[in-house]
Amino acid sequence: MTVVGEILAIGDELVHGAMLDTNSKWLAGELERIGVVVHRFTVTSDDPVELRTAIADCCARADVVVATGGLGPTLDDRTRDVVAELRGGPLVFDPVAWQQVQDWLQSRRRPVPESNRRQAMLPPGATSIPNGNGTAPGFEVQLGRGRFFALPGVPREMQVMLREHVLPVVQAMPGLLPTAQRWLRVLGPSEAALGERIEPFMVAGRQPAVGITASGGLLTVRVVGTGTSTAAAGAACDATVAELRPLLGDWLFAEGEVDLPQFVLEHLRRAGHTLACAESCTGGLLLARLTDVPGSSDVLRGGVVAYADDAKRELLGVPAELLAAHGAVSEPVAAAMAQGARARFAADVAIATTGIAGPGGGSADKPVGTVCFALARADGVRTWMLRIADLGRAFVRDRAVFECWKALSGR
Amino acid sequence: MTVVGEILAIGDELVHGAMLDTNSKWLAGELERIGVVVHRFTVTSDDPVELRTAIADCCARADVVVATGGLGPTLDDRTRDVVAELRGGPLVFDPVAWQQVQDWLQSRRRPVPESNRRQAMLPPGATSIPNGNGTAPGFEVQLGRGRFFALPGVPREMQVMLREHVLPVVQAMPGLLPTAQRWLRVLGPSEAALGERIEPFMVAGRQPAVGITASGGLLTVRVVGTGTSTAAAGAACDATVAELRPLLGDWLFAEGEVDLPQFVLEHLRRAGHTLACAESCTGGLLLARLTDVPGSSDVLRGGVVAYADDAKRELLGVPAELLAAHGAVSEPVAAAMAQGARARFAADVAIATTGIAGPGGGSADKPVGTVCFALARADGVRTWMLRIADLGRAFVRDRAVFECWKALSGR
Repeated sequence: MTVVGEILAIGDELVHGAMLDTNSKWLAGELERIGVVVHRFTVTSDDPVELRTAIADCCARADVVVATGGLGPTLDDRTRDVVAELRGGPLVFDPVAWQQVQDWLQSRRRPVPESNRRQAMLPPGATSIPNGNGTAPGFEVQLGRGRFFALPGVPREMQVMLREHVLPVVQAMPGLLPTAQRWLRVLGPSEAALGERIEPFMVAGRQPAVGITASGGLLTVRVVGTGTSTAAAGAACDATVAELRPLLGDWLFAEGEVDLPQFVLEHLRRAGHTLACAESCTGGLLLARLTDVPGSSDVLRGGVVAYADDAKRELLGVPAELLAAHGAVSEPVAAAMAQGARARFAADVAIATTGIAGPGGGSADKPVGTVCFALARADGVRTWMLRIADLGRAFVRDRAVFECWKALSGR
Repeated sequence: MTVVGEILAIGDELVHGAMLDTNSKWLAGELERIGVVVHRFTVTSDDPVELRTAIADCCARADVVVATGGLGPTLDDRTRDVVAELRGGPLVFDPVAWQQVQDWLQSRRRPVPESNRRQAMLPPGATSIPNGNGTAPGFEVQLGRGRFFALPGVPREMQVMLREHVLPVVQAMPGLLPTAQRWLRVLGPSEAALGERIEPFMVAGRQPAVGITASGGLLTVRVVGTGTSTAAAGAACDATVAELRPLLGDWLFAEGEVDLPQFVLEHLRRAGHTLACAESCTGGLLLARLTDVPGSSDVLRGGVVAYADDAKRELLGVPAELLAAHGAVSEPVAAAMAQGARARFAADVAIATTGIAGPGGGSADKPVGTVCFALARADGVRTWMLRIADLGRAFVRDRAVFECWKALSGR
């Protein structure tokens, strides 16, 4: 027996393409961690008929349904009303929930608009779920097969409510199937070449399951197993990982959820090296991804985003003659940027990017997608150039950042 | 009559929470632009039973179903097989598709693994859709009510195939309902206060529909209308927007898809001002978001990410005594950082952030979430401090960046 989960994201802005649903992915990770088997996500509009059908469908297929959105104070927030219809009765005023809404607004010295009272109306039979970080209380209620949990769409509110109120309820359900995951991070082969190498592991129904994910140049081999306990599931995964490791060989660069910025920082930390960045076309993206990682400050000294030529001269000491002779997008300028950053930030290693991210700025000689790189170390500076396919500004920038991860990880 | 659309994203990595589905949002925007009414997104695993049910469900409810994923060369890519089952026949080898796969690999001087041959097997009755940017051909086929389009999951491949092959087919379908959207960007009120102000517009069934979206502190009023032509739908939206404008007053800061970085750049451009940034706790995030915008280089001179104290001294000229007397997270240091960036980048305006993003580094006096800001202009420097709730490193950094947008847009 397994506990089947589904996730529902509610909102016109999601289904009309105005906003990205990031909640469902996060929720799936949390539910799977405690042994729920998530089968499906659904994203639906606020339209009452669509919403009612979607909620009824999810609750007919799954034991646990977690929904986000549609709990705000405005008239286009309809989760409460639609669930009341499905329960076959009118909304019920919940004085405890109303007190929480008022307390929260008053603690922030905000007025209490009468419209917020809508948020304290619950479907019949529902129990409210308190929200410590916003006005919208959630609720839970049984709907057919499914235990239905309604949470607000704001991630920081929803996340706390899931962890504090939903997960403990779900963990007490009978039939939870403990699962474990292992991730093997791979750099080098194409997805097809990797698939051929580990093909015997990828048959449908294998336990633990082995799959490949491609994301931004990085391939991940995922091993997902179930067992009578989390420890047993983990042991089954570990046995599969032990068989995979020799097949992957040098392609395997890390194990676990570690992402490329984390891996690069850890690689430098182990070598006792500090890092500085000089970014032109990547414009801070490399620095932003590095500083996303908690504790990055012990490796990363800092960096310069030098868009303008005078900024390259003034802040990185790139000689004016070099800019004049080769242009800003050139290997000699990249080298001078990296060496300048290394010296000014007193770092052991410095990396530089200068290129044309587009859509403008390209020429016959240096088309959009031309990016020059330099990596400066105590023993000298290495430069190289890439012609990245012009598949949009974001693509060129992302691909250039990926090239930096490869270089900084010694690949 | 309307053309109803649904979107399906396929992949274990999506439903198990390992990877974020960004394709569906993009597809919804493209389909709605040509008049398809998108009702639902579904995300499903690669499990053959789940996948078959999900595809059959979508094709029973919608006229157009666009699916992404499950077309790779490996055994866990099952979209082709499952659709062949639903069509009631075996896969058929498509020599044209196979030639395209080979040509693409050979053009990149890559070997042609035999496993790629799987990608040229199509369900019976299906037509292949060529892929100019990767190995996986797509296909289209009728399944019940729905025209089913299968595209690869890699965004840059999928996007070109949708625009070149899918949209022209859909545009020729009878019953397309032309739609238009208008977005009003709002800064200032709470969502509830905004909802009360425009409540008469937010009733279910109103045409054009008016809704509110909240995202990272920014509120958007969305007006979505339909009509006999795109022009008529647009005119209906414009009439509603004209009624909304006076109600929003000063809260309205921009109209259209313009995002905060774009708005700030445009605001500075109109004033003839250039910008520089000095980032500590935001670590390049502000610069990365600014340089995401094409053409940002005519306003943005550049910036410094100064994590280490010596970097603040060396690259921004922050006096050592100031750092010793007040600490790096202080308004005087923020002021010196902004003034230093303004001088060194020869910019008209400079903004600085210095704070504690966490999880480590907090103290009783300066807890995690403490961020100091400075805005330097020709007429002087303004500093201020925020105590941002400690809801995680990413939240503190995002909230600090949002504060910079407000300050740079003169709010």
